[in-house]
Amino acid sequence: MSKLLIVGTVAFDAIETPFGKTAKVLGGAGTYIGLSSSYFKKVESAVVSVVGGDFPKHYLDMLTAKKIDTSGIEIIPNGKTFFWSGKYHNDLNTRDTLVTELNVLADFNPKVPQNFRKADIVMLGNLHPLVQLSVLDQMDKTPKLTVLDTMNFWMNNTWDELMQIIARVDVITINDEEARQLTSEHSLLKAARNIMKMGPKYVVIKKGENGALLFYDDQVFFAPALPLEEVFDPTGAGDTFAGGFVGYLTQTQDISFENMKNAVIYGSTLASFCVEKFGTERMESLTSAEVDTRIEQFKQLTRFEISLG
Amino acid sequence: MSKLLIVGTVAFDAIETPFGKTAKVLGGAGTYIGLSSSYFKKVESAVVSVVGGDFPKHYLDMLTAKKIDTSGIEIIPNGKTFFWSGKYHNDLNTRDTLVTELNVLADFNPKVPQNFRKADIVMLGNLHPLVQLSVLDQMDKTPKLTVLDTMNFWMNNTWDELMQIIARVDVITINDEEARQLTSEHSLLKAARNIMKMGPKYVVIKKGENGALLFYDDQVFFAPALPLEEVFDPTGAGDTFAGGFVGYLTQTQDISFENMKNAVIYGSTLASFCVEKFGTERMESLTSAEVDTRIEQFKQLTRFEISLG
Repeated sequence: MSKLLIVGTVAFDAIETPFGKTAKVLGGAGTYIGLSSSYFKKVESAVVSVVGGDFPKHYLDMLTAKKIDTSGIEIIPNGKTFFWSGKYHNDLNTRDTLVTELNVLADFNPKVPQNFRKADIVMLGNLHPLVQLSVLDQMDKTPKLTVLDTMNFWMNNTWDELMQIIARVDVITINDEEARQLTSEHSLLKAARNIMKMGPKYVVIKKGENGALLFYDDQVFFAPALPLEEVFDPTGAGDTFAGGFVGYLTQTQDISFENMKNAVIYGSTLASFCVEKFGTERMESLTSAEVDTRIEQFKQLTRFEISLG
Repeated sequence: MSKLLIVGTVAFDAIETPFGKTAKVLGGAGTYIGLSSSYFKKVESAVVSVVGGDFPKHYLDMLTAKKIDTSGIEIIPNGKTFFWSGKYHNDLNTRDTLVTELNVLADFNPKVPQNFRKADIVMLGNLHPLVQLSVLDQMDKTPKLTVLDTMNFWMNNTWDELMQIIARVDVITINDEEARQLTSEHSLLKAARNIMKMGPKYVVIKKGENGALLFYDDQVFFAPALPLEEVFDPTGAGDTFAGGFVGYLTQTQDISFENMKNAVIYGSTLASFCVEKFGTERMESLTSAEVDTRIEQFKQLTRFEISLG
């Protein structure tokens, strides 16, 4: 068994899409990354996060049933759980944030469980860069691979701290607009090169329904998103992608560029399920047979045979 | 030798991008499709179009030097050549049209040269649907394959005529927003299925820098766009893609779905060159060695090896 340490929010989401709306449901980057990586049976994972006394025990039980170690999810009895509410536009590519209540997240002081301080792979979900730095500082051993997810909010508000954590990770996952903002380069090829100069050896640029690019040295790999009948709710797709990426790498214990390509395909595959239902619902019921079928669809989607000359 | 008949505009363009601007230069869908398909040496092609007395002879000479039959390009001595002028926004994905002067195009009555009335493949470039219908009506033999390109302008202004020509072609190439407009479906998978019900057996949805999808029956193939250092001028990229697509199919004389995948890859490859310089400049100087190198890059970009279980 290989160990994967995840830090990220465990939260309440209330989501509205053109297809309906939810009450407060389980959400958060840590939740989606954890559920996605739990698909891989040889992965021993833990989520580090914080919730309030209002967080239902059955959510934690569900994560535990998925073999996710929740001992690093601190419960603040008198606090309230982080809450996000958003409404997607008709194209589902853009959304308005209606409510952001940081609550217990405002003073989040992550505590890495003793038995995960030598984890093989560390996934730093989107959070304040100082929280991400604190997690790395608590490790007893340099992980084989550290993966960072972040967003434009931290570029706008905590640039210096963001540069510190970017300098210390091996892989960064970021969306296309954020890659452009981070580097002031429109060409994603140039943006990725500039990000590599900031620290990461590998750059993953997420383009939502337009797939994902993996950059390493002067090499590029592209994974399309699977064309879907319908996208129902995009919430958590990026985190599910990241969870599939690190889960596959932890399971296979191979962090070569060649194997990272497969990890990107698994990330895209798992994300393609996530968006089919509201919130975490689809990820909770996912089977191996379903995933295998879709991996085959990915092969069909991308295979071609040209003989030159 | 296999024959490819192309109908499309041969025109003057004046282009402004963040990188500079041109005077009136050679442009038009027929020009870009012709130049792109001329890359394939076993293809005998002809362009059907119309220009005015102001059209420089050296442009026609350049096309002839590329082995393109220009006898179907009618010259109206007292008329002026179609002129388009546009300015691209900073992201190069959107543009404003500054000038559209139809000139001789307003009364374009296409005349298919006698020696191309049994052409194997017919490429109907973006034009009034009645012009496209007239070309098909002039054929002495049903072509092996007819490919249609069109745009939102015809959906807004000549819906009934557009439906007539769509019903008569084998392949349609269209961009993502236009596919959505044509079908009122947001999902490209559903849009493609609906378009197939209108007539075409194959649907190619072009997504610009996000690649292209090829649909046939219940199968899908995706070709990414090659990540580029810099896009200099996107003018003609869609037509160059179409020219590469039909040129490859004409050259190989194989219109199976498997071979159409390769045609999409060649279309994407040739389009990746087109955008590197203003107007037709890059396409005029393209070498086989350059194309072969980029085809290899496409393989590197998309190949992965997952063994399940």
